[in-house]
Formats: sequence, C-alpha cells, structure tokens
Amino acid sequence: MPKIDISRVPVRTGTSYPPALAAIVEGRTAQRLGDAGGLTQYGVNLVRLAPGAASAHRHWHEAEDEFVWMVEGELLLVDDEGETVMRPGDAACFKAGVANGHHLVNRSDADGVFLVVGTRAALERCHYPDVDLAFVNDENGRRFTRKSGEPY
Amino acid sequence: MPKIDISRVPVRTGTSYPPALAAIVEGRTAQRLGDAGGLTQYGVNLVRLAPGAASAHRHWHEAEDEFVWMVEGELLLVDDEGETVMRPGDAACFKAGVANGHHLVNRSDADGVFLVVGTRAALERCHYPDVDLAFVNDENGRRFTRKSGEPY
Repeated sequence: MPKIDISRVPVRTGTSYPPALAAIVEGRTAQRLGDAGGLTQYGVNLVRLAPGAASAHRHWHEAEDEFVWMVEGELLLVDDEGETVMRPGDAACFKAGVANGHHLVNRSDADGVFLVVGTRAALERCHYPDVDLAFVNDENGRRFTRKSGEPY
Repeated sequence: MPKIDISRVPVRTGTSYPPALAAIVEGRTAQRLGDAGGLTQYGVNLVRLAPGAASAHRHWHEAEDEFVWMVEGELLLVDDEGETVMRPGDAACFKAGVANGHHLVNRSDADGVFLVVGTRAALERCHYPDVDLAFVNDENGRRFTRKSGEPY
C-alpha cells in the first residue's frame, strides 16, 4: 500500500560522522520514509531533534537539491545570513551548488520535527564550513574525509 | 534566504488537462515551493483541495518517484487497492514504474492540504487508467495526448 505506516519505520539514532565530530547531532533521530516506500531518486527523512540537538554540521551540497518542511516545534535555521526561526508550515530550499552552509538547531525546550528531501546524486560532494570535514560520493564509494581529502 | 515566504508564492489555479477532463480538479490550487526556492531536480508543491476536488485523475508515473505528506484536513487516497484515509502527518510513496493509478480526493467538508514531491525526469510518461489521457515528456516537449498518442 502506498501509505506509509510511520509507526513501523525504524527510528535511526547515531551518525556516520567521525566520533570527534559526532556530539552536535546527539539527540537527533530520523526515519527514512522514502526508503520505506521504495523511493530511490530522492531521500525523504522525518527528523526529530531533542532540545540542544542539531540536524548536522552546517553544510552545503554540490550536486543535490535539499528541501525542508517544518512539522512540529520550533527550530533555528542557521546559515551564512544568520538565524531564522522555523515553525510548522515553514519551508526552506537549498539549491545544489549554492555555497551557503546551513543546519537546523533546537534551542527550544521541546522537540522539533521536520521533513527533509534530498536528491540521490551519483556523484556528490558536501562541504562543511565550520569543521575539518568533507563528504564525498564517487566511484570509490561514500565516505567522510578531512578537508584535505585525507581519511579520518 | 533559504526560507520560503509561502505567503508570497503564487497560488496557481486551473489545469493543463484537456477541457473535457478538467472538472475533476476544480477547487484545486497549488503553490510551487521548490520552484520558488530555485530547486530544479524535483518539484515540491503545496496543494489545497476544496471539498469535492481531486488532486488529479488517477495516474502513475513511469519515470518519476512521487511522495505525499499530509498537512491539513482529511483526504482519501484512492488507488487500485481501494480508499485510504490520509490525515496530517501521514505520508505516501509512489515509486516510479509501479502501475497503481492513484489520486487524492476531498470528500470532507473542509479544505485538505498536502505537500507533494516529484522528480523532474528528462523522459517521462504518465498513465491515467480511468480516462482517455496520457502525458508524455520527451524530445518533442511536454504534452497530453489520448491513450492512442493522438493529440487532443
């Protein structure tokens, strides 16, 4: 059936960030709704941030369009332009290749929930302006490296 | 700024369906949020259905993954399996190439609102099991035809 039973979609915790950079996403959980429904062309994740958690390190994608829809609570969208409050029914677009590092952070005292859509590009590089981190997806696979390209 | 001011995104009415097949979507309006934010790899539309309106004729895409997120009200998802109630926080996935014609219809007495994501494939064909209609996007452009391929 096309309708997803969200209560049965696994709730993922943890991160594939190098351990030294993992603390920022403590309190983040995510459910892969698109995967649960068999979609492959883009991912759709339902992400919950506990108070204090961030969605990610600030980042921007070279190749993948990203879209955010706020579902519950109040989060701050932090990017090069500053901080923008996001509440249910708010949306944000991050066009591929626009070098504006962004993330969502929860400075409220309740959970914040959003839906995020990201294309699945065959070749991708993701930039993290605030930390010594890069993400690459190429013919050698998916991996985090230092900005220099050195492995962690 | 990445955040979209939804109040300033044009509210589109009407349809590009042939006039004889247009009545089903009377009462449908849509805002193209992804376009407003410069996204090109997929469309993200915020769609409002007045009581009695449908999202589209039942259809399925050969090439484009489709995702629906319910925002407001109560709609019925109608597909080959029957009818499924959709309420805020419900999601549905329609994988490209799965021949299960679907649409959302509003049989309630209040508006229903949903977000819909669809890949922008270079080559696409969309099938409409209930009516003499096909949609094609190919090297000759985007167009509706009869099932036979004849133009309207």
